[in-house]
Amino acid sequence: MITKRSAPRSTPNRLDRRSVLASLATLPAWPGLIGTAAAQAQTAPLASWNDGPARRAILEFVRVTTDQASPGFVPPEERIATFDQDGTLWVEQPAYAQLIYCFDRVPALVKTKPELANVEPFKTVLSGNREAIAKLPMDDMEKIAVATLSGMSVGEFESQVKAWLATARHPRWQRPYTELSYQPMQEVLQYLRANGYKTYIVTGGGQAFVRVFSEQVYGIPPEQVVGSMGGVSFGYGNDGKPVLTKDPKLLLNDDHAGKPEGIYLMIGRRPRAAFGNSIGDQQMLEYTKAGNGARLSMLVLHDDAQREYAYGPANGLPDSRVGTFTQALYDEAKSQGWSVISMKNDWKRIFSFEQ
Amino acid sequence: MITKRSAPRSTPNRLDRRSVLASLATLPAWPGLIGTAAAQAQTAPLASWNDGPARRAILEFVRVTTDQASPGFVPPEERIATFDQDGTLWVEQPAYAQLIYCFDRVPALVKTKPELANVEPFKTVLSGNREAIAKLPMDDMEKIAVATLSGMSVGEFESQVKAWLATARHPRWQRPYTELSYQPMQEVLQYLRANGYKTYIVTGGGQAFVRVFSEQVYGIPPEQVVGSMGGVSFGYGNDGKPVLTKDPKLLLNDDHAGKPEGIYLMIGRRPRAAFGNSIGDQQMLEYTKAGNGARLSMLVLHDDAQREYAYGPANGLPDSRVGTFTQALYDEAKSQGWSVISMKNDWKRIFSFEQ
Repeated sequence: MITKRSAPRSTPNRLDRRSVLASLATLPAWPGLIGTAAAQAQTAPLASWNDGPARRAILEFVRVTTDQASPGFVPPEERIATFDQDGTLWVEQPAYAQLIYCFDRVPALVKTKPELANVEPFKTVLSGNREAIAKLPMDDMEKIAVATLSGMSVGEFESQVKAWLATARHPRWQRPYTELSYQPMQEVLQYLRANGYKTYIVTGGGQAFVRVFSEQVYGIPPEQVVGSMGGVSFGYGNDGKPVLTKDPKLLLNDDHAGKPEGIYLMIGRRPRAAFGNSIGDQQMLEYTKAGNGARLSMLVLHDDAQREYAYGPANGLPDSRVGTFTQALYDEAKSQGWSVISMKNDWKRIFSFEQ
Repeated sequence: MITKRSAPRSTPNRLDRRSVLASLATLPAWPGLIGTAAAQAQTAPLASWNDGPARRAILEFVRVTTDQASPGFVPPEERIATFDQDGTLWVEQPAYAQLIYCFDRVPALVKTKPELANVEPFKTVLSGNREAIAKLPMDDMEKIAVATLSGMSVGEFESQVKAWLATARHPRWQRPYTELSYQPMQEVLQYLRANGYKTYIVTGGGQAFVRVFSEQVYGIPPEQVVGSMGGVSFGYGNDGKPVLTKDPKLLLNDDHAGKPEGIYLMIGRRPRAAFGNSIGDQQMLEYTKAGNGARLSMLVLHDDAQREYAYGPANGLPDSRVGTFTQALYDEAKSQGWSVISMKNDWKRIFSFEQ
């Protein structure tokens, strides 16, 4: 009775070689503190949003689902809202932050395993030859991801990510990645939480990676981060104490069809509201919207080259795959009653550091 | 640097053939309503507990971790408490409720797949020949579990479990299983929540099975149930709507070492308090206790044959494996500063329906 569409499954980090190179080419390693786009008290809800259909859709959804007199009222325990991260809550161009992280970790990795210095693809990464790095095939990219994201204890991994976040800078804004969350989306998170919604990140990126900063950056605790999940193994250290070690095994590829699957496994309830920006979010938005009662599915459209980036259908090529927001996804949004957020028109400002 | 003890991994449902038989032999199928051992307002905390080291350990742990002036103070967001279910929150004898469920589902399963009527082990289960059923080997038990727990949509599964809960009765008390939660443990759940703790179930049983009733029975929402996890697949039904289907694939065996692994994957924080009753909980209690600051690890000892059951070390055989609470576990508890709860001595009453 059920037919399965074979949804395209990408690797957890959705590697894009051109983007990686672009970012690596310009990425300095400055010391600094981890920035925070922490919640700020708002005088009015969604203050960084212009009045328009997107802002009104959010306000109306909250009104309908929280007003006890409304037929769309949702009991507090069922108020679940899910958010993609890359490109929805923070900048994903010119490359996913986690991918930069993996490349940046290679020198430290080789220090602990000197035998890798002469083994590909690590040798090429260490060479600094950007042309050669750009030519690395996809399975070499995956080798780098596996080598830098597994094999250590979960505590060591957390320390490594924290150290990177403290020094890494985005090539365009020269700021920590943690300062590059979208202020209007921070306001959506706050507004939904103020109205009894539990907010979740549902990311194709690594669950363990995002958990390191999700509470500080988004006010979302680790238990509310659903992401691509590597296995962990319980064991005992030399001191006899329990240790959890990150395995190279992928348990859940939390992208495309994996997003509603991950939501079921980790949350066990269908979201009332879901936010995404790419074809990796399509099934999550479909699944959310297919529930009964009031549901909100929204897509962030990157159409602001001046203040951020313009890619996907916004770049004027109807079938463009420059980004992962295809024309087909745009058309589905329009026909299915999802809201499309125009960064250019709907957002007064992009980042909290802008006035 | 890390050595792995190969912890014994049992099947998710830890099948026990003798117990199954004992239960099947006496299990009538009476219609009825799902009972609830819902939270009741308590005049004093832990009112169903006798004064003693176990009750005092809980009160002291809460005092130390919630008093801002205490060096053991724990910020609210880090207050995580995890509870095994079978034998810790509700009765597990003479057989796990979920195992009874699987056997009880076989006739309905054969109705939808008549070809199974003449296929083993389904043929034997249908025969009602208890002696033959008792002799079914373990892999036949697993076939029954797979056939009754996967292949349907997640919505169909939920309906099937609800229908069973409404009619199934425990052979000894002739009450719905949902009425057989331990009143003193309900009070621990309530007391911890009243003090800012997030309470989780961490069960070797099926996550999807327990989620059906966890909110009603324990006040624990589905997103706070960690259990043995089968895969799910996203697809589209004949109406074009998204459907999640339960797969026969096991993603996480949430027992023994799988418990701290599941906690890491689903919660991402080490518990401050953990409660169990068997060797399946050993690693969770070790992991909890190994954290810094105040930690509470507790084991329920079934030593009350009159009001419930006596098994494990309580049955007087030091190396007994009648239950899964071994003498070695008891000794570890004593040497590691875990608290052992004596049902006989520490609990004034076992169930909410007792006065």
